Amino acid sequence: MADPRNDLETLIELMAKLPGLGPRSARRAVLHLIKKRGVLLSPLAEAMTRVGQTARECLNCGNIATGDLCDICTSEKRANGQICVVEDVADLWAMERAAVFRGRYHVLGGTLSALDGIGPEELRIPKLRDRISAESVSEVILALGATIDGQTTAHYIVDELPGVTVTSLAQGVPVGGELDYLDDGTITAALNARKSL
Amino acid sequence: MADPRNDLETLIELMAKLPGLGPRSARRAVLHLIKKRGVLLSPLAEAMTRVGQTARECLNCGNIATGDLCDICTSEKRANGQICVVEDVADLWAMERAAVFRGRYHVLGGTLSALDGIGPEELRIPKLRDRISAESVSEVILALGATIDGQTTAHYIVDELPGVTVTSLAQGVPVGGELDYLDDGTITAALNARKSL
Ligand SMILES: [Zn+2]
Ligand SMILES: [Zn+2]
Repeated sequence: MADPRNDLETLIELMAKLPGLGPRSARRAVLHLIKKRGVLLSPLAEAMTRVGQTARECLNCGNIATGDLCDICTSEKRANGQICVVEDVADLWAMERAAVFRGRYHVLGGTLSALDGIGPEELRIPKLRDRISAESVSEVILALGATIDGQTTAHYIVDELPGVTVTSLAQGVPVGGELDYLDDGTITAALNARKSL
Repeated sequence: MADPRNDLETLIELMAKLPGLGPRSARRAVLHLIKKRGVLLSPLAEAMTRVGQTARECLNCGNIATGDLCDICTSEKRANGQICVVEDVADLWAMERAAVFRGRYHVLGGTLSALDGIGPEELRIPKLRDRISAESVSEVILALGATIDGQTTAHYIVDELPGVTVTSLAQGVPVGGELDYLDDGTITAALNARKSL
């Protein structure tokens, strides 16, 4: 059995590894957890244990699943012939919160990056190609970041899927966004994609 | 058995209750946990479970303990006749990191606050009075924040402990500053320049 004093230090060290928390905020968080033992610490430990036992990667799309396939891939309602390609699961969740897309997803797990040595095989792109015919896909919608790597990845996917309609999220002024706060690239993109009213 | 999909949502909701994390950073943290299941999620769940089972409040000083008394209260080496009074355990940890104080602590659990209805009974002040004779205390060092409530609490403690030498951390604690935000050097300088009240 481990030294109980070390359990506390171990907990702080592990918490400090979470994105968004450093050593100081990890200590604060652990003190908060101990104060709220009944309503927070115990439920959190249980939720982590259960998620650790059940969560896995959907074999089809890369979303988080509790079986071989995720809820979206098993739902017939989501088989509308559209696949939205995102970089990671956080982007999939952002799309789902917008509640505007009714098709399925494909989570790349990143973007092509010569610098980081990330090629197509690392990105689940071969699996995307397989899904086109397997799921009678009519349109692939790219929802990738407006970064250089994101755009490189977009161009690669277009080349990899000849004969498939590939579209991309529009670039422009965010809803509620003030022009004065936008970077030049966004303004340029918005101007180039201007529409007749 | 709970719906496994809800486990993930429950985990995100609980994580969002931690200080320093909001809904967005909680989602990011949970995705990170799932990606690092073996090296982070499982050890974290175990550490939380163990801390939840073992951590309690030291009956003497209010520090976090694994038995009735904390390591500092059970260590004879720390019985040097000095008690350092802090607001909370985070402040105690900050003092210990500075590694300059060799006595024991007394964790008030807050400061007197008419506004928040916090009186002496809520603050473990009666227990502090008991310890003066029980532990042959020669000096009580107040390491309270340089806030109005902190200073009110300091004056109250001085009045409550007639005949006891009560000192306070020196100027060097910035006005309005909280102890836990200070670097080790500032804490060391403030302790060394402490003044009699
Ligand atoms: Zn899926
Ligand atoms: Zn103690």
